[in-house]
Amino acid sequence: MNSLASTTGPVLIVGTGLLGASIGLGLRSLDVPVWLQDASPTAVALARDVGAGQIRGPEHTDPALVIIAAPPDVTADLITEALREFPGAVVTDVASVKGVLLEELREVEGLDLRRYVGSHPMAGRERAGAAAATSELFAGRPWVIAAHPEVDPAAVRTVRHLAADLDASPVHLEPVEHDEAVALVSHLPQMMASLVAGRLVGAAPEALALSGQGLRDVTRIAASDARLWAAIITGNAAAVHDGLRAVRADLDEVITALERAATEGPLAEGAAGAVSALIGAGNEGAGRIPGKHGGARRHYAEVTVLVPDEPGELGRLFTEIGQIGVNIEDFAMEHSPKQKVGMAIVSVLPDAAGRLERDLGDRGWRVVAP
Amino acid sequence: MNSLASTTGPVLIVGTGLLGASIGLGLRSLDVPVWLQDASPTAVALARDVGAGQIRGPEHTDPALVIIAAPPDVTADLITEALREFPGAVVTDVASVKGVLLEELREVEGLDLRRYVGSHPMAGRERAGAAAATSELFAGRPWVIAAHPEVDPAAVRTVRHLAADLDASPVHLEPVEHDEAVALVSHLPQMMASLVAGRLVGAAPEALALSGQGLRDVTRIAASDARLWAAIITGNAAAVHDGLRAVRADLDEVITALERAATEGPLAEGAAGAVSALIGAGNEGAGRIPGKHGGARRHYAEVTVLVPDEPGELGRLFTEIGQIGVNIEDFAMEHSPKQKVGMAIVSVLPDAAGRLERDLGDRGWRVVAP
Repeated sequence: MNSLASTTGPVLIVGTGLLGASIGLGLRSLDVPVWLQDASPTAVALARDVGAGQIRGPEHTDPALVIIAAPPDVTADLITEALREFPGAVVTDVASVKGVLLEELREVEGLDLRRYVGSHPMAGRERAGAAAATSELFAGRPWVIAAHPEVDPAAVRTVRHLAADLDASPVHLEPVEHDEAVALVSHLPQMMASLVAGRLVGAAPEALALSGQGLRDVTRIAASDARLWAAIITGNAAAVHDGLRAVRADLDEVITALERAATEGPLAEGAAGAVSALIGAGNEGAGRIPGKHGGARRHYAEVTVLVPDEPGELGRLFTEIGQIGVNIEDFAMEHSPKQKVGMAIVSVLPDAAGRLERDLGDRGWRVVAP
Repeated sequence: MNSLASTTGPVLIVGTGLLGASIGLGLRSLDVPVWLQDASPTAVALARDVGAGQIRGPEHTDPALVIIAAPPDVTADLITEALREFPGAVVTDVASVKGVLLEELREVEGLDLRRYVGSHPMAGRERAGAAAATSELFAGRPWVIAAHPEVDPAAVRTVRHLAADLDASPVHLEPVEHDEAVALVSHLPQMMASLVAGRLVGAAPEALALSGQGLRDVTRIAASDARLWAAIITGNAAAVHDGLRAVRADLDEVITALERAATEGPLAEGAAGAVSALIGAGNEGAGRIPGKHGGARRHYAEVTVLVPDEPGELGRLFTEIGQIGVNIEDFAMEHSPKQKVGMAIVSVLPDAAGRLERDLGDRGWRVVAP
């Protein structure tokens, strides 16, 4: 028991990779007792060494909460084992697929699913393993709680407390809705980014020299780990498949229209209309993505400033913007090909843009886009 | 004549939208004489008023260089007229398609194409028209010079000087190569971003609440102007069509594999392999995009810091990083859904990351990803 956390514990974490060890670190920082277990003795020792909890011993027999944080293909078996071994515990998992998993569990005879609540913290890093773990991994991130109809409400509360203790934002979704949602906002964009980047494999260096920020943005996540994503995508195959088929239908339409334009010229009947409809739908869809802090997207004015690539220059820019008294709402860097200069794109409230441009210009900065 | 620019002038700019007016502003800042012409009297007056040059009068009969900066569908006709009207001038254009345009020009009888050099400055803004023009629009951007075999080398030099005077980086490409290159690095990513964003039109708000930075990056350019892009894409229909067909072939393979996984389960033969091959190709392609300053991509370490969304906090972070003495190589902001806190992702040389994390922690910052 402790006074800092809503989670009482003891908590048994099965699987001590990045997610498991990060949960352990977060709970330990709130003084919750944590036991660690992993198929790999090295992995569990590493998690202990970074401070994620103590290695589970024979005396640790009665956890209040079990968190399965193992690879997706063994998660169902580990949930089953945990529900049987610990009849007093709530059991959850952090796998990225929820509906498919629940289906698998329903097929196991005599399993008490009232104590099971699937969950999915939407957090990750480019590095894997307990060595990359951090108690702040979930701070500010959505944590999906995918309760099924027959679950005990007290079990849902337990998982909600866990998410809150780790500073995540709980989001409630049905398991199948969750799988469709992540297919749409995560798995589909990943596949499309990889498809675009894959086309660059055979490209001429001269063509690649024309790459701009648009291509860089679209393909940033194409650098993701292939083995991990093969497991994620095949684990959610049905929902991703549906999404990709819908994309192909849209793609087919525009391919047909462009075929006509390639033969008959740019003014071929229907060509401009088909492309414009595609881009227009994209405008509408992009406008629906929640903006900063989950609120409606705000419109900011962008002020672009050329910044020499020298130590301290970016810091000086920020200091001077502070002196001018304008709040920076968002910020991004863009780099010029072959020039030792970066473009700092500073988003500010539209009212403040004119003053910022003028004052930065007065101070000797090169403002690119007034 | 003047001593600041390599371009001697007088320069006649036909079409005074964003690009034409920005070229005029840049040349005027170097004291090059500029004459402006546009089908719209309002547009040409606006360009004059922002300082892009003087409106062409009857006495302006002998330009050294003519720049056609009109919409793509009238560019060929305007190039033809200029070559006939000014037998002593070099003529260029700034349209986003080069091979198709040259083909059109070759079909015009008796045209002296030795004085014509197609070019394509890879610059633009979200706002259009002379009101958004800036002499810095081309600074640090690639400017493609698409010379054809029968061109006069002196004409190529003239256009190269123009690009250099405007601080752009000249890139030499054959006209057809240019069209294939922009299809690959610009038009194809635009279509794919729009396809992903288009899928969000009917999505549930709960699904959109799970949107992360990956989706935001992939769909950022989906906010582009539909009418403008319809003209760009249909103008380069053949090359974009080829690119989209290649994407569809890759897509078909993974759809077939996922169909099997959706029926037989995630371990269905070939499913993981197909997804992994797609992501792997994406890894390779993304790795070929030139990085900062056009050099090989460098690997930086990322330090993520939670920044309260209050005036001055981002400035304070930068000031303190400056005090710690670490150079910021790159920087991005990521926003947490529903929380009044942003994540500042600071890229630094790998050697400096440990020290930066420790020192920022000591100063009271919450470092998310050590």
